[in-house]
Amino acid sequence: MTQTDTVADLQSVLSALADPVRLEMVRRLAGATEPLACTALYETVTKATASHHFKILREAGLVERIAEGQCARYDLRSDAVDDAYPGLLPSVLAAANK
Amino acid sequence: MTQTDTVADLQSVLSALADPVRLEMVRRLAGATEPLACTALYETVTKATASHHFKILREAGLVERIAEGQCARYDLRSDAVDDAYPGLLPSVLAAANK
Repeated sequence: MTQTDTVADLQSVLSALADPVRLEMVRRLAGATEPLACTALYETVTKATASHHFKILREAGLVERIAEGQCARYDLRSDAVDDAYPGLLPSVLAAANK
Repeated sequence: MTQTDTVADLQSVLSALADPVRLEMVRRLAGATEPLACTALYETVTKATASHHFKILREAGLVERIAEGQCARYDLRSDAVDDAYPGLLPSVLAAANK
């Protein structure tokens, strides 16, 4: 299995990014040099809502979950996503960072 | 008013593209050298459903509607979208054309 096998179809990836809470999670991960603790990725939603958003990001193949006790860490799968959809994530992140 | 003023926020643009019917409409417009008649842009949905999708694309600023009797023509606002979100539309279209 190559990395790109686990990136979802384009619609799922766009839908996953088309939400302000999830886009902010992705934006923070993109700005980090190492996986971030889940609690560093949201503020305005409850833990349950955040879990829902993490699930959608994982299912889209945008993030990897690294289990670690109560609070997992997350890593952005930049290379896999860029292999699957070249240029998509950088252009979305550039727009999100404006 | 510059062209980019009428391109919607990033979430709206991503949501508009994150639907298979709308993405196919955009893909066909991107492949055309001139505005296309609405009827050339869909097959699998009813006229009413297509109108709903056209409205979302227009509100996102992705397409321009050129009124013309019963069936409008549509043009992709490639330059305006690329000014607002550089690289986004080309990367989405490349993925959609794969």
